[in-house]
Amino acid sequence: MPNITPEQMRFWSPSVRELEPYVPGEQPKIQNLLKLNTNENPYPPSPKVVAAVQAVLENSADALRLYPDPDASALKQAIAKQQNVAVENVFVGNGSDEVLAHIYKAFFVRDEPILSPDISYSFYPVYSQFFAVNSKQIALNEDFEIDIADYKQANGGVIIANPNAPTSIALPLTKIEELLVANPDRVVVIDEAYVDFGAESAVTLVEKYDNLVVCQTTSKSRSLAGLRVGFAIAQPHLIAALEAVKNSFNSYPIDRFAIAAAVASFEDQAYFEAQNQKVIASRDKLTAQLTNLGFKVLPSKANFIFATLPSNDAGELASKLREQGIIVRYFNKPRINQFLRITIGTDEQNQRLVDTLKNDILG
Amino acid sequence: MPNITPEQMRFWSPSVRELEPYVPGEQPKIQNLLKLNTNENPYPPSPKVVAAVQAVLENSADALRLYPDPDASALKQAIAKQQNVAVENVFVGNGSDEVLAHIYKAFFVRDEPILSPDISYSFYPVYSQFFAVNSKQIALNEDFEIDIADYKQANGGVIIANPNAPTSIALPLTKIEELLVANPDRVVVIDEAYVDFGAESAVTLVEKYDNLVVCQTTSKSRSLAGLRVGFAIAQPHLIAALEAVKNSFNSYPIDRFAIAAAVASFEDQAYFEAQNQKVIASRDKLTAQLTNLGFKVLPSKANFIFATLPSNDAGELASKLREQGIIVRYFNKPRINQFLRITIGTDEQNQRLVDTLKNDILG
Repeated sequence: MPNITPEQMRFWSPSVRELEPYVPGEQPKIQNLLKLNTNENPYPPSPKVVAAVQAVLENSADALRLYPDPDASALKQAIAKQQNVAVENVFVGNGSDEVLAHIYKAFFVRDEPILSPDISYSFYPVYSQFFAVNSKQIALNEDFEIDIADYKQANGGVIIANPNAPTSIALPLTKIEELLVANPDRVVVIDEAYVDFGAESAVTLVEKYDNLVVCQTTSKSRSLAGLRVGFAIAQPHLIAALEAVKNSFNSYPIDRFAIAAAVASFEDQAYFEAQNQKVIASRDKLTAQLTNLGFKVLPSKANFIFATLPSNDAGELASKLREQGIIVRYFNKPRINQFLRITIGTDEQNQRLVDTLKNDILG
Repeated sequence: MPNITPEQMRFWSPSVRELEPYVPGEQPKIQNLLKLNTNENPYPPSPKVVAAVQAVLENSADALRLYPDPDASALKQAIAKQQNVAVENVFVGNGSDEVLAHIYKAFFVRDEPILSPDISYSFYPVYSQFFAVNSKQIALNEDFEIDIADYKQANGGVIIANPNAPTSIALPLTKIEELLVANPDRVVVIDEAYVDFGAESAVTLVEKYDNLVVCQTTSKSRSLAGLRVGFAIAQPHLIAALEAVKNSFNSYPIDRFAIAAAVASFEDQAYFEAQNQKVIASRDKLTAQLTNLGFKVLPSKANFIFATLPSNDAGELASKLREQGIIVRYFNKPRINQFLRITIGTDEQNQRLVDTLKNDILG
């Protein structure tokens, strides 16, 4: 950010002067870098994704001059089919970050506090500040788990990531259901960015609960972080609030290439399942290897692990890995400043991490 | 929108229950339709755009699994070069609609009223409602022109479309400068969605005025409505406010295909200029033909015209054109409910409009 004088600052809206924006994981442009810091998938998207974009170029490049379908109906249909819900249950946006922003505006701008875990996706407090949402952070228990009992208090809504990030720990659906029952008059949002790597999705509860919004993304399990497509599943009266917000902000958030590519991804269920199984197997293998090196690894249902090495400072470990060309995510925050968040790579990439730790750093 | 019971409505944020969202021009899926209703370009984008996306597929489809550059630096550089400004003067977003939304949040959330013309882009009042911006509409004069003298009053900021829409009339830069001088402590936004079709751009004033934000889009003059890329040009202390807002809402709004495609468009200046000249020539020809049929056509510097036929009701004309497979935009609003907004097509398409009017409707 440039140096801004107090005089120049008079042009900013007063509330914007106080914003503390989200800081995305860095995207360095270094050769041979092993990037295990932003929970991207180590595998490419389905070959059908590339074919679908190719088809747009060949058959309808001229249509780039035309606005995309503001409703992205084709994409909603593909998601509905894959998720086994009706089209009326689907909302789509420019990445799940935009979907989450719309969720905050649609449901959470009210007097009572919105509850979320103290250790969770670091964009939640940013949205709260952006929309002037009254929010209250609930501490994870000593095992870094969400304890639903702590959320049974007056609130204006609840948002929980399941699996949680950066802890990687998942809640069973019975616990989610307990939360839904305890909050009959307020929306409960389950942010399932990492659900496809072994956790139970709450989408199966949407039909039963009129207060549930489930949010997912194509960025992790579908290898489409470069595309920006996220979605929410809920009953129609909640989807309508999201549509009202979206159409008061930006009518056409998803471009023609992204729609075509995402549709192709949702239609290739076999690739999706096979790829996720590979990541899960690699995660379990890496967890065992790091445990052997003395790490304590939290039980992960995500495409990353959250690990601490009692003998070494986590911040120093992150720096030393970086010197060796391996980037992991380190949060210098209370309670988690002795942990590293490590994205699951291919088996080969994970082996490089293990070898580097063993031979160059700990050895 | 589904029927929503008062009981279901309790889940919505109170302020969201009152929103009146923007209604985009319809995108009907009808064969042989002549679509002159959403100001899209009749010509495809530069062939280099298609080649750039092709190159992404061939060289870096694997990179779809990785987040795009959150800063879209390559795109900012291409825009800076084409606009003859520094990279630090450029902000990019998911279409100029998203850029405008961020502009409202960044500069216009303050006590004094934000001024805009009473007849202008219909998204402005929607943004005002979304961000609870205090806004005041200033009537166009009897010739449907913006009179800068009317804006010389206490305000929290000013936003003007130049050329204005749907009137198509442009202000000269001397008038914009008058407005900038009269508002030294508040931001003046010039929304130049249509500027490339013959108006003077205020980008040349950015170096001189610390209170100017110019907003443009690739959707019209670059034939990339299907891609969703808009941008703003301003001094760095204003760009910084937009970045703070953007990074508190959605860090990665532009996907890998859109970045590559838009860069290619900005690098093909010759195609851009030739195509705009074609549209301008067609506009002048169509204006003459409609004038011959008895229409009064406002003096246009855009890729559309705003026209009224004293002998016929505009709403009825729009309906009759629709029956003949031609869609134009009709606004059933005070002062302009006897006008049609007609997008400039190819000469052949415009001829079909003229022939249909002459032979099937007025004849």
